[in-house]
Amino acid sequence: MAAKLHVCMTCRAGLPLPEGEVPPGARLHAALLAADVPVGVEIVPVECLSACSQGCSVALTGAGKWSYVYGRLTDLDAPDILAGAAAYAATPDGLVPWRERPVIFRKQSLARIPPTIPPQETAP
Amino acid sequence: MAAKLHVCMTCRAGLPLPEGEVPPGARLHAALLAADVPVGVEIVPVECLSACSQGCSVALTGAGKWSYVYGRLTDLDAPDILAGAAAYAATPDGLVPWRERPVIFRKQSLARIPPTIPPQETAP
Repeated sequence: MAAKLHVCMTCRAGLPLPEGEVPPGARLHAALLAADVPVGVEIVPVECLSACSQGCSVALTGAGKWSYVYGRLTDLDAPDILAGAAAYAATPDGLVPWRERPVIFRKQSLARIPPTIPPQETAP
Repeated sequence: MAAKLHVCMTCRAGLPLPEGEVPPGARLHAALLAADVPVGVEIVPVECLSACSQGCSVALTGAGKWSYVYGRLTDLDAPDILAGAAAYAATPDGLVPWRERPVIFRKQSLARIPPTIPPQETAP
């Protein structure tokens, strides 16, 4: 089991960015890397997740799993994002039971997408 | 080259659904099936794309391609959605040049997600 946590690096969270300031997306990326990244979770910077009006945003993907996109995040959400990513990584299909999802994942979902390749059946 | 066009069947487009009425998502699905579905595009009904406040929504996926989610759609958008899906299906990576995307795809993107498996290199 594994997951990729894609982080939009260029996100300005819908606001103007004063010259010389680090974009909120890059701040979120740095906060995630500085925290305890769970085993099985790989943090992947991306240039744009096309969710600009709902930034900062992250996307969780994994082979054979549903993908999820979450928005309206800040660097203060890093611990909850990583806890949610760990729970996602531990599933075969990306479907974490509702009550086991962090509140930000329950309330700030932008979209989910079915797996490109269905989950492999596990041996009994 | 191919694409799956996932259509959220249960979408109520954020509105109450009068008893006995067909949900807007199911109406969009029916309109897509009734139109000329381009070669290489497969229409796939799904129960929920978790974009409920921005419905109706569809998601485009394909092996090795970026995935895209679009929202605020109605059954009247079926021809444009299918034109956009055909352009997407014809790409190796899901990245359709901006000017070749239907206006609804340019203006109503909810999110995009990198491919789980990177695009295969094509022979020269």
